[in-house]
Amino acid sequence: MNAFMNYTRDKLWQIEQVGFDPEVLGKTEAIMALGNGYMGARASEEESYVGETRDIFVAGTFNQFDENEVTELPNVPDMWAMNFYFNGKSFTLLDGEVKDYRKKLNLKNGLLSREMIWICGDLKLKFVFRKFISKARRHVLSSHVKVQNMTDEVVKVHLRSGINGQVSNEGSQHFTDGEKGLMVGKYIQMMPQTTHSKIQFVQTVEHRITVPSKNRPETGRRSFFMNYDFELPSNGTVEIEKRGSIYTSIDNDLEFRDLEHIRIKAVDDMEAIEEMTFDDLLEESAIAWQKIWDKHPIIIESKNFKDQLAIRFATYHLHIMTPAHDERMNIGAKGMSGEGYKGHTFWDTEIFMLPYFTYTHPNIAKKLVTYRYLGLDGAHKKAKSNGLDGAQYPWEAAWPTDGEVTPVWGAADILTGQATKIWSGFIEQHITSDVAFGVKQYLDVTGDTQFAQEKGFEILIDTAKFWASRLEYNQEGDFYEIKDVIGPDEYKEHVNNNAYTNYTAYWNVSFAIQLIDSLRNDQQSVYERLNQKFNFTKLLKILQEKVNKIYLPRPTDEGIIPQDDSYLSKQILDLSVYKSKDGVDSLFHDYNLEQVNQMQVTKQADVLLLMLLFEDLFDKELKLKNFDYYEPKTTHDSSLSLSTHAILSADLGKLNESYDFFNKAIAIDMGEYMKSSDAGIHAASLGGIWQMVVFGYGGVRMFNSKLRIEPHLPKEWSHLEFGFDYQGEALTVKIDQAHFTVSKLDNGQNIVFMHKGQEYTLQNMVTI
Amino acid sequence: MNAFMNYTRDKLWQIEQVGFDPEVLGKTEAIMALGNGYMGARASEEESYVGETRDIFVAGTFNQFDENEVTELPNVPDMWAMNFYFNGKSFTLLDGEVKDYRKKLNLKNGLLSREMIWICGDLKLKFVFRKFISKARRHVLSSHVKVQNMTDEVVKVHLRSGINGQVSNEGSQHFTDGEKGLMVGKYIQMMPQTTHSKIQFVQTVEHRITVPSKNRPETGRRSFFMNYDFELPSNGTVEIEKRGSIYTSIDNDLEFRDLEHIRIKAVDDMEAIEEMTFDDLLEESAIAWQKIWDKHPIIIESKNFKDQLAIRFATYHLHIMTPAHDERMNIGAKGMSGEGYKGHTFWDTEIFMLPYFTYTHPNIAKKLVTYRYLGLDGAHKKAKSNGLDGAQYPWEAAWPTDGEVTPVWGAADILTGQATKIWSGFIEQHITSDVAFGVKQYLDVTGDTQFAQEKGFEILIDTAKFWASRLEYNQEGDFYEIKDVIGPDEYKEHVNNNAYTNYTAYWNVSFAIQLIDSLRNDQQSVYERLNQKFNFTKLLKILQEKVNKIYLPRPTDEGIIPQDDSYLSKQILDLSVYKSKDGVDSLFHDYNLEQVNQMQVTKQADVLLLMLLFEDLFDKELKLKNFDYYEPKTTHDSSLSLSTHAILSADLGKLNESYDFFNKAIAIDMGEYMKSSDAGIHAASLGGIWQMVVFGYGGVRMFNSKLRIEPHLPKEWSHLEFGFDYQGEALTVKIDQAHFTVSKLDNGQNIVFMHKGQEYTLQNMVTI
Repeated sequence: MNAFMNYTRDKLWQIEQVGFDPEVLGKTEAIMALGNGYMGARASEEESYVGETRDIFVAGTFNQFDENEVTELPNVPDMWAMNFYFNGKSFTLLDGEVKDYRKKLNLKNGLLSREMIWICGDLKLKFVFRKFISKARRHVLSSHVKVQNMTDEVVKVHLRSGINGQVSNEGSQHFTDGEKGLMVGKYIQMMPQTTHSKIQFVQTVEHRITVPSKNRPETGRRSFFMNYDFELPSNGTVEIEKRGSIYTSIDNDLEFRDLEHIRIKAVDDMEAIEEMTFDDLLEESAIAWQKIWDKHPIIIESKNFKDQLAIRFATYHLHIMTPAHDERMNIGAKGMSGEGYKGHTFWDTEIFMLPYFTYTHPNIAKKLVTYRYLGLDGAHKKAKSNGLDGAQYPWEAAWPTDGEVTPVWGAADILTGQATKIWSGFIEQHITSDVAFGVKQYLDVTGDTQFAQEKGFEILIDTAKFWASRLEYNQEGDFYEIKDVIGPDEYKEHVNNNAYTNYTAYWNVSFAIQLIDSLRNDQQSVYERLNQKFNFTKLLKILQEKVNKIYLPRPTDEGIIPQDDSYLSKQILDLSVYKSKDGVDSLFHDYNLEQVNQMQVTKQADVLLLMLLFEDLFDKELKLKNFDYYEPKTTHDSSLSLSTHAILSADLGKLNESYDFFNKAIAIDMGEYMKSSDAGIHAASLGGIWQMVVFGYGGVRMFNSKLRIEPHLPKEWSHLEFGFDYQGEALTVKIDQAHFTVSKLDNGQNIVFMHKGQEYTLQNMVTI
Repeated sequence: MNAFMNYTRDKLWQIEQVGFDPEVLGKTEAIMALGNGYMGARASEEESYVGETRDIFVAGTFNQFDENEVTELPNVPDMWAMNFYFNGKSFTLLDGEVKDYRKKLNLKNGLLSREMIWICGDLKLKFVFRKFISKARRHVLSSHVKVQNMTDEVVKVHLRSGINGQVSNEGSQHFTDGEKGLMVGKYIQMMPQTTHSKIQFVQTVEHRITVPSKNRPETGRRSFFMNYDFELPSNGTVEIEKRGSIYTSIDNDLEFRDLEHIRIKAVDDMEAIEEMTFDDLLEESAIAWQKIWDKHPIIIESKNFKDQLAIRFATYHLHIMTPAHDERMNIGAKGMSGEGYKGHTFWDTEIFMLPYFTYTHPNIAKKLVTYRYLGLDGAHKKAKSNGLDGAQYPWEAAWPTDGEVTPVWGAADILTGQATKIWSGFIEQHITSDVAFGVKQYLDVTGDTQFAQEKGFEILIDTAKFWASRLEYNQEGDFYEIKDVIGPDEYKEHVNNNAYTNYTAYWNVSFAIQLIDSLRNDQQSVYERLNQKFNFTKLLKILQEKVNKIYLPRPTDEGIIPQDDSYLSKQILDLSVYKSKDGVDSLFHDYNLEQVNQMQVTKQADVLLLMLLFEDLFDKELKLKNFDYYEPKTTHDSSLSLSTHAILSADLGKLNESYDFFNKAIAIDMGEYMKSSDAGIHAASLGGIWQMVVFGYGGVRMFNSKLRIEPHLPKEWSHLEFGFDYQGEALTVKIDQAHFTVSKLDNGQNIVFMHKGQEYTLQNMVTI
């Protein structure tokens, strides 16, 4: 048994695994995950295996197991499993011979399929399993099996299939064993409820079998199964569909949210699609997917066909993981493809995933930034608990009003056996300026005045207010500093004046001053409303008093911006020996985290990320020096690192190096390493793929609130085509090695963009 | 893969499974369960399989998941699993070729072992797995693996093993994810706590490997593993011991019960046995077991060697399941061998298991009846909640003071999908007289005056007080009746005047009257103390007023005691067709429970059990008539039925029939049917095995508070030898087809016993 990922030049919509290996189930469970933003599910097999993780999540349905654990997205009772017995023999690929095993995800229509021939004793059966979560009907999922008997003997089939609530999140059970019911004689329903947040679920399953069968319902603890007995004729075929739906009492598309109404609604909706086949439902879902693919399609002509596949892979996942339907929810760091990071939202959203939506689906981006507006209360709570003012965003966020949900204690330390404290929730504070940055970028790109006036400005000012209260006065030097933080480089805890943190805080404060000024001058009513909240006279005084005294680490004589006060004085370790081996793993075989903390070793882009996001603050020469200084010291032991390096090195003209980063970045989930994605896909990295293409090689960026387009393709690419929305206009950019063209329909407003310091006005098409 | 149970004439201490089949894991998990009364564990495999149930229970540590579930014995984080990788290949019997697979339980010393040769790719390995729970040290368990490399190539071994708290009770998680620690560099500790009852656990594991290894601790959510890498030399052997202990904050052998003290105690105790090998610990445990085997050994010389094996099997299980160390605990209906019945105690204890202990281990029996004394508060609560007086024992009991813990709702009805109400907790009321019966039998057999005076008499009177308040006056007939109950035959819910219930209630009340009288006359101080509690003048008046008007169903003209008011008027179904097929299963394919309820179909001995327990109330002819009437109508769909029928039919001289029942009864768990014991062994049935031998064929019984010995061996048995304690004297009975001898050491008091209506005085030996 040897499973490997297989990508082919002629199948640029397909992620494929060839061969079955029970040791690496996690890989395809995660990278072939299904979803529609409302719910997400790992691509677990129909039959069960030791080592599997059968997650189904519904966005936003957070629950806390007990006071020792933080809230997390609960693993919903499983609806995918189907246990087959053929002539009394349990169907498992661990037994017998398996031929032609293929597991495939079609990115275009979200169809997951598995095919194989199974030979076991006298049995020879061909299977085609297919399943999807509907992009057209948010509550609906469906699974279809075609079994073909390849022998001349009739095969007796027993199928046990239903809803199994004996699953958990790594042992933590988030649901009560709710009511169960068999509705209209064919729909099995389970009604679990989350134990603490009291969210009511209604799960419904119906089976449709193409041959007559003897049926027996079977209820048990946390489970409701149907048992089917039927015959598979010699050389014949049977098809089984298992169709299901999930509703919850926090669904925003329900008129009535009490249990009885939801149950009836669930049955009504199942009955409404009774006439539709599996393929009908799939087709309808494919049409919904096509709308996504039709909006700003990206075409990459590259020597390496995987580049095209990668951007589709990223786009697919960005859509299945994003709760575009409900602004009370946001994107988890693993999407809904695994239990990692508990479904929590990090700065990953603003710095890595949000840009994709801001530029290509501003309506979805609006939901994501609105989530942060709804999070203001939680952010106030957090600031207050630290004796501070304004909005301090939680390092990890779940339900928006919950505030900070970062776990306080992590896994036990290997040496001491004692649990290690997780400091991020306390001192990884740059998240607050990251949120502000995301809002500002959203406003710049979309020109969404209404959101700005109703919500966005408030976030930008409230976060600045937080920073003003956070700054610590240094009497000796007469400046304000930010001590005891974690910057983006999480190897370094409890550092003073992390450059990324200080610079972004400075930006946040200074932008708020500008903003208040401009509101007073230009938007009197907004000013008045916000003034009620903030008392601008007093706030401005504080902001202005402090802004110019914020300590911004300056370059050393060698032109290096110190990552923090102590970084440059630490011991330098030659990482190249580790990078040439298996990377970080081998480093941590030689040193523990405490030791790495004492060396100039960086987990991920920190100073360099600052230079990418605030490019106008640093000149190219300085950026080059810092790139050459920090990159060799960076382990890239975070999926947030490679894409930043790819874009920055592209900006700096290091295109070959950039393309190396690009290739490593797309391999984070899609690569050959079969254990990479066990806890879920790397959401930020997927946002990073889009950014590498559009920001990095497409050269699109907001620079001083102006659109700039400065493409530079890697030499392996002959052509790149993409689109985005800017200020309500849909732009298309086509790039080859010599020229590029920006175009839009000419019935909108003219668009001004910058290229190499020059302004271009786009009415219909500009070729440069 | 085909697994079967294998018993051999020359191995009368051994339960063996030959061959491995992942479909029937539950059989040996349950019937080869390990335990010492403090804890019990299913005999799960070291490697993991889909379909396994890896339970470890600690007696009495009940917890309630939420208000929708009843309290249950929680499944403790697993300490048995060991995951091996050989040259990177995961060890599982589903892969490769398995030769000479044997799984064995040695009943004599409680050693579970598995042997096999595993050939997979280039690997050829011989395994011997052994494990046991120490009978000598209640907190200690140990597991030992010997792996032999049968090839000329060195094999790289990776072992991941530790404590895994991601287990649950069918999805319900009863533990918090507690602290973890690596103590003294080698003991891994996990400290889970039950979520509701707040019982603190300390679990410790140590690994001992005979070759040098590279070690890496790995902590995770609810888990703490050690990773070992080492080499298995060509044609060489490696041995690994995994030794562990469990302590809890309710342990009655601890001086200090706070977490810190328990942790230290656990480490100290592990260090104290550091010099002992696995075999040393096993030997020590075997010596403790030998004390049990040496006390009243039973010898059966039979044409069927399984008869001897069966009594050992029963004895083994009766001891591993019984918390002899702590009177706050009792025996679960599945012992600690499965999650079935949630570890709850039923009438199974008093009527089926307690007699074994009363006659052979009165010190343990005393703990079991004391448990009921501790349960008086709960019984008062239950009576009060029903508007009644006295002690109404809960149908299901857990922690003694908790009172009734029977679930109110069962699995959803197959037809309606609605949950079915479980009526037992409300109306299966004979448990109260069963408890009284058990106490009375204990007093009669042991002559334990102290227990009688301090606790036993109070139970006997308090239960009578309950019945007096429970009786309903029938104005028309001028009698007291008991309406709306479930008798032992659980097919019949909501019946009036169930014979078993009415007769035993009558006995309970009339015995209490006698008792109060005799206390007043002979035991003034006890009388006075209890009089404070009961107000005997008032109570006696009530009891006397009602006792002779209790309605006791009389025989019909045909000599049949009606099971209840309506039973005999119901439709008769010819069960013989079902009995000749696969029994009850086929019956329930044709009829649902509601329909069976309307027919003269009985689940288990009901009238017949009454005739067995209160033999003096009915003459032999009547018993014969009732036996011939009811038995053909009985499905024996309860493991409590066959042993009663075996004993009663032996009493009635139907020895061939009796021996048939005996054989069916011992097959309940030991038989060939591989799914019989999935949810756990059948504790009552095991008590029944001892009763069939000693009560049935040994003919030992208390009759009118006098010892009676009237043996009658089945024709297949040439010799039976057993012993028991009577009034503090150890008696031995040796029986062959012609004669029997009762003997005792002559340094005690003389014992009087009855045989065929004649009194014998036993000084040293009597042969009849």
